[in-house]
Amino acid sequence: MRDFSQDHHWLSINTATVRKQWPLERIIDECARRGIRAISPWRDQVAALGLAQTARRLRDTGLELSGYCRGGFFPAADAAGRQAALLDNRRAIDEAKTLGAPCLVLVVGSLPGALAGKPDYTDIGRARSEVRDGIAATLAYARSVDLPLAIEPLHPMQAAERACINTLEQALDLCDELDPLDGQQALASGRTPPCLLGVALDIYHVWWDPKLQQQIARAGGHPTRNRLLAYHVCDWLTPTRDLLSDRGMMGDGVVELRKIRRWIEQAGYAGYAEVEIFSDTNWWLRPGEEVLDTCIERHRSIV
Amino acid sequence: MRDFSQDHHWLSINTATVRKQWPLERIIDECARRGIRAISPWRDQVAALGLAQTARRLRDTGLELSGYCRGGFFPAADAAGRQAALLDNRRAIDEAKTLGAPCLVLVVGSLPGALAGKPDYTDIGRARSEVRDGIAATLAYARSVDLPLAIEPLHPMQAAERACINTLEQALDLCDELDPLDGQQALASGRTPPCLLGVALDIYHVWWDPKLQQQIARAGGHPTRNRLLAYHVCDWLTPTRDLLSDRGMMGDGVVELRKIRRWIEQAGYAGYAEVEIFSDTNWWLRPGEEVLDTCIERHRSIV
Repeated sequence: MRDFSQDHHWLSINTATVRKQWPLERIIDECARRGIRAISPWRDQVAALGLAQTARRLRDTGLELSGYCRGGFFPAADAAGRQAALLDNRRAIDEAKTLGAPCLVLVVGSLPGALAGKPDYTDIGRARSEVRDGIAATLAYARSVDLPLAIEPLHPMQAAERACINTLEQALDLCDELDPLDGQQALASGRTPPCLLGVALDIYHVWWDPKLQQQIARAGGHPTRNRLLAYHVCDWLTPTRDLLSDRGMMGDGVVELRKIRRWIEQAGYAGYAEVEIFSDTNWWLRPGEEVLDTCIERHRSIV
Repeated sequence: MRDFSQDHHWLSINTATVRKQWPLERIIDECARRGIRAISPWRDQVAALGLAQTARRLRDTGLELSGYCRGGFFPAADAAGRQAALLDNRRAIDEAKTLGAPCLVLVVGSLPGALAGKPDYTDIGRARSEVRDGIAATLAYARSVDLPLAIEPLHPMQAAERACINTLEQALDLCDELDPLDGQQALASGRTPPCLLGVALDIYHVWWDPKLQQQIARAGGHPTRNRLLAYHVCDWLTPTRDLLSDRGMMGDGVVELRKIRRWIEQAGYAGYAEVEIFSDTNWWLRPGEEVLDTCIERHRSIV
């Protein structure tokens, strides 16, 4: 297991963590100033700064990406809506490619309209079928430009509005169906490269799962390709006062971060630990400098 | 599939649904007045009315129980705490027996102290182990008095504070371990009687689960004993504003109640559909009469 206590070499900042404090340009500068080597930006932040400008700023500061947030939201009320979603996912892939992201994170969507409080339908089985078809179509394009897609299983409390893929097992089942590995050859180097279709494992969404350890081992269990494309950290607070924006800083909640990191490293993951905290009533209200400094300190002491 | 549209023969009211409006005695009277045949009361409500008085009131009105809420909360910071939990579960079994309940519902507990915001430990694997041992010990007593225990898998958003059993699959795995069925003989009648250790299926907690249909079939799949001991209904609202007390009335949310009832009836469940709604900002604020009348109407039209 890697030693994180001496530096923050493997720390990445998901830019949502300080989105209320700063625009993307400032986030990039503040991360670079602290020796943080990677970020994972959101599309709306990139759009605000401009794609070319973001790419230049990343190049100038030497920052790399640990992922790009996000594609997905495949289900829709009608065929036109589903087609629009596919086109939007192609644009997201192009942007991710321009920025040099290692993967596009997919928040797959669920009952269309539910996020606005008015679902067009309530058949979650249908939503899951539309997600499957949407990923299959998007994967063909992702393959053509060699950009991995990372399905992010979301916590079951988000199952109606944001994602109908809610466990790691379910995500891996879909990966195995759409991107079978059996025919793929091992590389001569012996290193296990990422899959074209894998998972973004956010501990906030999966920490509770009784099959977590087993499914993490499964994700890294294939000799030629690794399904673990990204790893997100924060913490689960007791009590949690909001279903979306009450995430805790690592160490302030009940998630066994060190134990889970051991599992994912045993499964072959060797990338960044990306901090992603949505926090309406705490961290989004604090100075961005304090948030980043705390992320660095907790990365060393807790993650 | 049973036809619920003509009457409310299979409606039961979990007494938490109108607990803010009425004491238990009044709840019993109001249910009886409406021809509701069953309730599932909570221990604190029974204690307030008195156990003997509750039993008499049920007898006088002809109401039966669809379950008794609740045992569980097995994990504790130390051995004394775990012992106290076992004794309390024995008392709950005795009460359930006195009241003629068909089962004691178990909300198994999780990280001790987490409900008060200060967990004594954060090892959910340890909590799961303590739950296993607690159920095993309680089952021995339950067997001696022939009172089935119904494990209620709770929504993963309750995993830290209230229950570390969070999927139907996990609950059934534990049932199979602690109460194996293979040696049990089929009854001559052909009817599948309840298991001594089974599950209480509350759609609020499990509706999102991609393995729900498969695991419901498994719960009813043994030829000699049925694991499905209780069925609770309400609805999942979009948005959901609180992790505990923002449940919806059947028909007001996104749960496919009719579809799930078909699955459980195909799996051999033939008991009550018990309405259990915690609702700080809506149903607990309305007159109890309106809530019960709405439950009856929705039972016929939606459940």
